[in-house]
Amino acid sequence: MSTTTVGILGGGQLGQMLGLAAIPLGIDCVFYDPSPEAPARTVGRHIAAAWNDLDALARFADMVDVVTFEFENVPTASLAAVAARKPVRPGLRSLEQTCDRIREKEFLRDAGVPVQPFAAVSTEADLAIALATVGTHGVLKTRSLGYDGKGQRVVRGAAELAPAWDALGRSPSIYEAFVPFDREVSVVATRALDGTSVVYPIVENLHTQGILFRSTAPAAVPDALARAAERHARQVLEGLGHVGTLALEMFVADGTLIANEIAPRVHNSGHWTIQGARTSQFENHMRAVAGLPLGDAGAPEPAAMVNLIGGLPPIGEILAIAGATAQFYGKSPRPGRKVGHINIVAPTREMLVQRLADAEHLARQHNQLA
Amino acid sequence: MSTTTVGILGGGQLGQMLGLAAIPLGIDCVFYDPSPEAPARTVGRHIAAAWNDLDALARFADMVDVVTFEFENVPTASLAAVAARKPVRPGLRSLEQTCDRIREKEFLRDAGVPVQPFAAVSTEADLAIALATVGTHGVLKTRSLGYDGKGQRVVRGAAELAPAWDALGRSPSIYEAFVPFDREVSVVATRALDGTSVVYPIVENLHTQGILFRSTAPAAVPDALARAAERHARQVLEGLGHVGTLALEMFVADGTLIANEIAPRVHNSGHWTIQGARTSQFENHMRAVAGLPLGDAGAPEPAAMVNLIGGLPPIGEILAIAGATAQFYGKSPRPGRKVGHINIVAPTREMLVQRLADAEHLARQHNQLA
Repeated sequence: MSTTTVGILGGGQLGQMLGLAAIPLGIDCVFYDPSPEAPARTVGRHIAAAWNDLDALARFADMVDVVTFEFENVPTASLAAVAARKPVRPGLRSLEQTCDRIREKEFLRDAGVPVQPFAAVSTEADLAIALATVGTHGVLKTRSLGYDGKGQRVVRGAAELAPAWDALGRSPSIYEAFVPFDREVSVVATRALDGTSVVYPIVENLHTQGILFRSTAPAAVPDALARAAERHARQVLEGLGHVGTLALEMFVADGTLIANEIAPRVHNSGHWTIQGARTSQFENHMRAVAGLPLGDAGAPEPAAMVNLIGGLPPIGEILAIAGATAQFYGKSPRPGRKVGHINIVAPTREMLVQRLADAEHLARQHNQLA
Repeated sequence: MSTTTVGILGGGQLGQMLGLAAIPLGIDCVFYDPSPEAPARTVGRHIAAAWNDLDALARFADMVDVVTFEFENVPTASLAAVAARKPVRPGLRSLEQTCDRIREKEFLRDAGVPVQPFAAVSTEADLAIALATVGTHGVLKTRSLGYDGKGQRVVRGAAELAPAWDALGRSPSIYEAFVPFDREVSVVATRALDGTSVVYPIVENLHTQGILFRSTAPAAVPDALARAAERHARQVLEGLGHVGTLALEMFVADGTLIANEIAPRVHNSGHWTIQGARTSQFENHMRAVAGLPLGDAGAPEPAAMVNLIGGLPPIGEILAIAGATAQFYGKSPRPGRKVGHINIVAPTREMLVQRLADAEHLARQHNQLA
């Protein structure tokens, strides 16, 4: 038996969940993460070295057959050093098209996925043009390195744009029209090396202070909208030539979908798949990266996830909720830090809603957002 | 957060699957297994020392909060050394009542679970008594340490019993009436520290040369029989005061159940629960041992498992089967050795049967039984 060894850049909870999915498949993982406390260290070998340590990166690449990442903000030079030695899946195109919010929106638009009006803000002069293009109600975001609501400001009138840009340190930014959305949804999907793909049921998400709090699958949306979401996920997979799992986050506004952003990796809004889907997003990512056929992305019954942020309830209280299980990441709690999640399954939507209410109540008692 | 550390005696594939279930719950595992290659070593700390190394066992006990086992033939003295220092769950009664086939059958009978006629064979004189009690068609088994069909002989006439006993080295044995069964079934169940319990759907098993080859859940049996099986599982859990998961293997003969044996631990006929049930037998065992509430043992759709014995098919061929996933244990293949399994789920029984046929065909091409 020849074992595949997969190198994973980043060793956080996503890495840990990838590692847990890899072990049964007989796939060995090596994690590259600067933190000696990286959660994934318990499920594979761990190289604790800095992102700019090119020697360590080369050593890492030499240990593995193929490389993937659970963290999309790996420095370009580091990634190039690895890519020079071993195949990286998904490919660099998936990162290039998504690491810059302007390029990402242009990619989505060109791929046929609807996006809201947007404009680049790089200079003082861009501000007026952006207001004229986008309108006076919008969101200003740094073009790169933002996540969980960091690096963005809401703009509610023409006079607020310039101060918002100041507040972002005049970084290269994108100004996007405010979308008066009814729901936030996402679609997680995986594409195999041979181009076949699977799409998970559409998920409804609830964010609190810019951080995902709850995901419910399937989202309570009309079938036509669910089919459109699936089509958009495939447009993104194909447009990127992606190999692996990704998430497409969208708004539902006035009954139609507007794409918000792409996460070119396994995603928090897909954690429910570990209990809820026939194959988890993590297993399918590892299958794709290892060049194997994908598993069924269907879900036999409704499922949901609640994030544990900044604090953990006693595990016994979580597990006492019917249909619930807990996943603790082994990270020390800090306000705003995702330290675990609760997954819930139920035979019916009604039962799910009840159980979810219990889980959310418990999580809110212990969560510390900031 | 106080983390529970669970010590597990034995580090085979059952230990590995327990460890995989423990990590998300934030439970640390320490495995005690003489083999430096123990499969579970990748999912927890590993003490590689001999079963009779009482110093190492004491050190192991000192590292953990509570001890369980994945291997029921731990020497009594070793177990006592551990039990003197830390709680062992399930308790020693679960081992005492099941490690000897005579005591096990007496326990089952006393607990109200039907068993076939049986007799002890310890001396030459017992042979005639056994034949008179049990009949001339039966199975002679060593009282202890048998598994996977080892240590047993079929007897088809009065003249065959004495030679069978010789073939077993005149070990203390049990002679059981042959049961002309229609099906082999098992029920996996878990009991929590507080006495609550959950029972998984009844499973139909197929053995080949005494080794489990295939399990299908739920077994195609009448509801009344499924309910009786569940009742018997609870009688065993209660009778033992068991804490953790166990399996009760039974025959269906003439429409009624006859208990064959108890495995006082997670069991091969419950591997399907990893994909197929809302909570796996492994997660529920870890919950029970850690004193936590149990999870839902229901299954949203039909599921099955096929054992990979003595050889592994290429993983890509397994994963190409719809609804299938693979679990490889990381053991070097040897004839008769369980080295992995295929789990299958499907939305309908008809689809499951089709997929299962593909999986069985693939497994048989690579299995080497002896």
